[in-house]
Amino acid sequence: MSGHKVTMLGTGLIGLFYTQTLHGKRNRDRVEVVYSRSQERAAEFAKQFDVPRSTVDLEEAVADPDTDTVLIGLPNHLHEETVELCARHGKAVLCTKPLARKAEEAKRILDTVERAGIFSGYLEDLVYTPKTLKALKAVQAGQIGDVTWARSRETHPGPHSAWFWDAKQAGGGAIVDLGCHCTEIIRNYVGKDNRPVDVMCWHDTLVHPIEAEDNAIALIRFESGAIGQFEVSWTFRGGMDLRDEVAGTEGTIWTNHFLRTGFELFSSGERAGYVAEKAETTSGWMFPVGDEVVELGYVDMFADMFGAMDEGREPMETFYDGYVVNAVMDACYRSAESRRWEPVQLDDWRGGGARRIAPARREWDGKTLIKQEQMPDGRLKLIVKDEATGEFSDVVTEGEPLSKS
Amino acid sequence: MSGHKVTMLGTGLIGLFYTQTLHGKRNRDRVEVVYSRSQERAAEFAKQFDVPRSTVDLEEAVADPDTDTVLIGLPNHLHEETVELCARHGKAVLCTKPLARKAEEAKRILDTVERAGIFSGYLEDLVYTPKTLKALKAVQAGQIGDVTWARSRETHPGPHSAWFWDAKQAGGGAIVDLGCHCTEIIRNYVGKDNRPVDVMCWHDTLVHPIEAEDNAIALIRFESGAIGQFEVSWTFRGGMDLRDEVAGTEGTIWTNHFLRTGFELFSSGERAGYVAEKAETTSGWMFPVGDEVVELGYVDMFADMFGAMDEGREPMETFYDGYVVNAVMDACYRSAESRRWEPVQLDDWRGGGARRIAPARREWDGKTLIKQEQMPDGRLKLIVKDEATGEFSDVVTEGEPLSKS
Amino acid sequence: MSGHKVTMLGTGLIGLFYTQTLHGKRNRDRVEVVYSRSQERAAEFAKQFDVPRSTVDLEEAVADPDTDTVLIGLPNHLHEETVELCARHGKAVLCTKPLARKAEEAKRILDTVERAGIFSGYLEDLVYTPKTLKALKAVQAGQIGDVTWARSRETHPGPHSAWFWDAKQAGGGAIVDLGCHCTEIIRNYVGKDNRPVDVMCWHDTLVHPIEAEDNAIALIRFESGAIGQFEVSWTFRGGMDLRDEVAGTEGTIWTNHFLRTGFELFSSGERAGYVAEKAETTSGWMFPVGDEVVELGYVDMFADMFGAMDEGREPMETFYDGYVVNAVMDACYRSAESRRWEPVQLDDWRGGGARRIAPARREWDGKTLIKQEQMPDGRLKLIVKDEATGEFSDVVTEGEPLSKS
Amino acid sequence: MSGHKVTMLGTGLIGLFYTQTLHGKRNRDRVEVVYSRSQERAAEFAKQFDVPRSTVDLEEAVADPDTDTVLIGLPNHLHEETVELCARHGKAVLCTKPLARKAEEAKRILDTVERAGIFSGYLEDLVYTPKTLKALKAVQAGQIGDVTWARSRETHPGPHSAWFWDAKQAGGGAIVDLGCHCTEIIRNYVGKDNRPVDVMCWHDTLVHPIEAEDNAIALIRFESGAIGQFEVSWTFRGGMDLRDEVAGTEGTIWTNHFLRTGFELFSSGERAGYVAEKAETTSGWMFPVGDEVVELGYVDMFADMFGAMDEGREPMETFYDGYVVNAVMDACYRSAESRRWEPVQLDDWRGGGARRIAPARREWDGKTLIKQEQMPDGRLKLIVKDEATGEFSDVVTEGEPLSKS
Repeated sequence: MSGHKVTMLGTGLIGLFYTQTLHGKRNRDRVEVVYSRSQERAAEFAKQFDVPRSTVDLEEAVADPDTDTVLIGLPNHLHEETVELCARHGKAVLCTKPLARKAEEAKRILDTVERAGIFSGYLEDLVYTPKTLKALKAVQAGQIGDVTWARSRETHPGPHSAWFWDAKQAGGGAIVDLGCHCTEIIRNYVGKDNRPVDVMCWHDTLVHPIEAEDNAIALIRFESGAIGQFEVSWTFRGGMDLRDEVAGTEGTIWTNHFLRTGFELFSSGERAGYVAEKAETTSGWMFPVGDEVVELGYVDMFADMFGAMDEGREPMETFYDGYVVNAVMDACYRSAESRRWEPVQLDDWRGGGARRIAPARREWDGKTLIKQEQMPDGRLKLIVKDEATGEFSDVVTEGEPLSKS
Repeated sequence: MSGHKVTMLGTGLIGLFYTQTLHGKRNRDRVEVVYSRSQERAAEFAKQFDVPRSTVDLEEAVADPDTDTVLIGLPNHLHEETVELCARHGKAVLCTKPLARKAEEAKRILDTVERAGIFSGYLEDLVYTPKTLKALKAVQAGQIGDVTWARSRETHPGPHSAWFWDAKQAGGGAIVDLGCHCTEIIRNYVGKDNRPVDVMCWHDTLVHPIEAEDNAIALIRFESGAIGQFEVSWTFRGGMDLRDEVAGTEGTIWTNHFLRTGFELFSSGERAGYVAEKAETTSGWMFPVGDEVVELGYVDMFADMFGAMDEGREPMETFYDGYVVNAVMDACYRSAESRRWEPVQLDDWRGGGARRIAPARREWDGKTLIKQEQMPDGRLKLIVKDEATGEFSDVVTEGEPLSKS
Repeated sequence: MSGHKVTMLGTGLIGLFYTQTLHGKRNRDRVEVVYSRSQERAAEFAKQFDVPRSTVDLEEAVADPDTDTVLIGLPNHLHEETVELCARHGKAVLCTKPLARKAEEAKRILDTVERAGIFSGYLEDLVYTPKTLKALKAVQAGQIGDVTWARSRETHPGPHSAWFWDAKQAGGGAIVDLGCHCTEIIRNYVGKDNRPVDVMCWHDTLVHPIEAEDNAIALIRFESGAIGQFEVSWTFRGGMDLRDEVAGTEGTIWTNHFLRTGFELFSSGERAGYVAEKAETTSGWMFPVGDEVVELGYVDMFADMFGAMDEGREPMETFYDGYVVNAVMDACYRSAESRRWEPVQLDDWRGGGARRIAPARREWDGKTLIKQEQMPDGRLKLIVKDEATGEFSDVVTEGEPLSKS
Repeated sequence: MSGHKVTMLGTGLIGLFYTQTLHGKRNRDRVEVVYSRSQERAAEFAKQFDVPRSTVDLEEAVADPDTDTVLIGLPNHLHEETVELCARHGKAVLCTKPLARKAEEAKRILDTVERAGIFSGYLEDLVYTPKTLKALKAVQAGQIGDVTWARSRETHPGPHSAWFWDAKQAGGGAIVDLGCHCTEIIRNYVGKDNRPVDVMCWHDTLVHPIEAEDNAIALIRFESGAIGQFEVSWTFRGGMDLRDEVAGTEGTIWTNHFLRTGFELFSSGERAGYVAEKAETTSGWMFPVGDEVVELGYVDMFADMFGAMDEGREPMETFYDGYVVNAVMDACYRSAESRRWEPVQLDDWRGGGARRIAPARREWDGKTLIKQEQMPDGRLKLIVKDEATGEFSDVVTEGEPLSKS
């Protein structure tokens, strides 16, 4: 029943969420050393979370003899060199999203850990929200049939730290910050063996005085014919909007992770208080979530990561997934530029292939059955096509609906 | 306080909704004659709705000496010739959506009524839902600032009549059937003076054994920089999903017209009953709407149409709007083919022009203010950019937020 | 197709809603004369709604030779004398809720119209909301089985006019103002033939500096065993909360008429506007309704009232219903005083009687079946009682669920 | 960082949830021995959850030398003797809800642990749901002002095990099973120092062929004037309905723990699967929760319990709370019998006392201000009372709203 000892790199919002999660409830894993570029922030963080040691020396933190796992919560442009340090010191490495700024950087990172033979995990928390995990089970059990469409939306008024807004450090804007979440959520819904074929993307900088995009929409076409759709924005008003929708041939899934989760609070505002990450108001109607680190997936994510380490298996989200996500985002940027569909360039595709969405043809009286529905009066209405003549017609009958098989 | 006497053309679902609306509540307009291609359906409809006369002769119905207004509820390929009949007989004409199958057909229809000088109105009901009307007022009053994005979604398991499924009669599939609603909803939100510049569209036939598309997604880019997004499907499971979302620089609007309107019903199904248009179940959790013809906009639409006639003004939705919608849909089909953005071809653009979305730049200490937010501890966090060096930085201060002006 | 000509008495919020409804859309009934105690308000109202005549003479308004129907929108203590005027002048009379301050006053009003033989209708709008009307149909069709419980909740921050707050004029506080709605909604759900037997009520004056109650909760026990529950408050924060819930042996109904109807609006508040009756905010998250007079039932209520007059039938809500409601409320006040259940005193009960809720006993293996449920593994779990020994036991079996009959 | 070793008594649904929680995620506490009355169930449970030892000897399980804590998940009538065993063996004891069948039994249990000086905790999970914990913080921070009303509702189609249905073993029906949750939720919202003064309760056996009540509603009046309200039912259709509502002088809270939490799934039912505790359907619209043991409060409950043990403090929910809950429920049963308010008999009241809800009187122009509201045109409308004459009047003014202080 022993836990892991962790080196935490970075003391920003993500480092805070990670450490809150590890030190929360009855968890058995602990942060033993924390690194920040600023001595003051490192010390303050260590004090706040009761972390034994703090340092401003990145390699010292990674090499700490007491820890077995490194958590990377640093800006995107520092991921590659940090993973190299982990490889050098033989540490398990868990890296925050996105894995890299571009697919080729991601591929080098992937190669590094595979060459070194160290455990690695991709910290894509939103794939691990309790709702997403249960929804994925429903999809995998066939409850909604073949997935035809998955929409993932993440929008809020913009990130909390300066480096996100600097395209050089971040590698882009809202796509790199938020689209990586959406892409991986979509991949999980359509199936990871389902190759992302090509991408159509629009982006623009509509509101903020920056060069990076603050709004983007993308369509991702998969081998099966399924379509992924993401909407990301740094200009949304009203809080943080995290919603996914999935359509299948036999069903539908809607998840709302943040703004409408069955918790509604009105306050006249005579007294104010902290409501939730990226909420905009402290009076009027507010929509907190119960436990942010649970609802955002952090708890289940670390359970999977450390569980995988202990059980000698791969985690649900790997550095390879991070690489695929970067490849999709690279295609997004190319498409926004070329204004056409762009192929997703994956030199290293490990998926197994997916069959085309294809419900069986059903016949009625020698004609193709297009649709059937029960009418208010109990009779059955069929729409059928005569393949010989190409004619469509309505038929109303007393019979029972045709079954699928 | 006198009402209008109406010729109703068509006895399908749309004719039924139109007539239910006119004959419902304390309305003062009445259907006097109904036309159907089938004598039986015409007679049955007349009986059901207490309509004095029925006929299978289209021109006779249009020319009826007692009626002043013709309602076209016929398949798309019959709109043009029917409008010509109305013009010939000098009748006010109200035509169901879409106005035509293609923009050039729509343009000829528009020319016909303008030459004849007859009153015409475009029966785009979903623009008139009570929620949309109130939301449009909020937008026009500036409550959400400049609109940056509008999503309109209409999906259900497929239409009720055979002709919809036949691309020749309908002019297309889900785009022509449902995308016309979405396009016009979006135009209303971004402003009708805001020219639709170009369009990016994906469509596919994923589930039904037909040639027309059963799923489509489109992006519409407007002159202001605003982006419209529609999602249409004939393969949705779970009822009829009619939702719109609008993002603005100062706010957000979400409307749900059908599946989640504050009416929830669970039934064990021991006894079943009619629930709502395109509902799929009669047991388990169901989500009826209160009054379908109100919630779908029919009541307010006809109030506007007949009110406009009486007051000698244009209705909110005109044949010109129908023409613009067809032009956008034409571009959608071209884009789905070419796999790139396609311009919206509008030979006759009557809009006034829209300025680019552009919030004013604000300064803090000589730097560009990117973002400001109140921290849980009450202090203010600013993200600023030094335009000289291009550097971004965080500043935490005790001060008050900067105002907009 | 001719409409009615109406005398409108009162120019407060209710008179405004009534007149907006009659003059809205394509309605064919019109207000011809308006009465107010204040010349200024009468004239202003007449101008606002294009009403031909206004007066401060109550009898003159009632006796107006051009109108056939009188709408009473006056404070409660004026209902009786006004109905007497209507009887004297032989006018159809529609009276706002509550019918009277006490049951004996209501009974005299009822006797007056019945003696005079004039048409009368009880303007209980919330029974006519589109959702309630459809929900009642579902209940009457048996979709939720026998009703066991109905909760009706109406709460807001307090009424808009001074007289409501004065127990002498109003006859009470929140119970008389809001409980009358709830009581009648509940009666419709449990069935009007179902006699209200006795009542248990709590009330208190918790917040406002008045003598009348500003909060109350009541339980109403019906002959069938069904229980009604109402919660009324003048101290609710967050808008106007209008929700009903109904439980039946075969189903459940939840309706939300105002605060959560699928319309959500966030505004930073840079520009404000009117949102909805009794909303508290003009920024942050707001929840308008589409069309207030539709959603609050006014449109369907007047359609029923004038339809009933035209068709020579009783309206859905009669003065007799108003009398029963007053009798229930009288029992509420007695119970709040005595702190025990108090009988509902109905000297004149016209209902037909209701049978006790009583699902059939089902047997399994000679034992009484208490409950059956499908287990996750597909097996059936039964809970049974041996009536001989009184022992309860669990049984897990492979079989099919027992049907109801 | 070491965890606790636990004896688990009982292998029913509650034992399963407790053990799932302890053995889930990265938790550091473990069940070491499990007891059941049935050898088979004990062994099966041990195997399923990887528990080292199982037994049918209750005292052996309690006395297990390796465990420090006993979890009681047994039927209500066994709690007292089991707690005595824990006292005898000096084990920390955590007991499921309700603590006992009657207050006097609860008081003996409380006395037993206090005499023995052992750690004890009351496993009232629903007080620990993440939403409730955050809502309680908001209330305690004053965000909704003084609590005036708290409604707690727990209804479902009936419990899973036979003993619940037997009033002798359980001590009652739906009140004892579910009302204990509600009572304690309400106490937390109104404040635990706020003495429950008296109780009004209705119960009936409407649907199931049992002697115990299958439906009940209770009002609990507290010292401050606040009113608690619970609704419990074993006859609800549609799943498990767990909702709380709180009204305060400055705000409102609504929490929905189960049926509407932002997760919606439609399935045609071609393939079925397990959805959630007490769900009734496997097709149509379903509403799963993300992670049941999180959403139902088990995770946070055990974190508090073991945290309290480690830190030498009291847990949030103590045996004393369990005793108060039993006292309230005893009064409920007396009231249902006597049909009047009944005092809550608490021989041992440890609360500190609560002041009466009492907003300050505000004056306007020498009169009492009853209400103020902003009108659509921006003016301020006041309702004031002249205390000298007792007259109420409306005032419309251009001024600013009066502040609270």
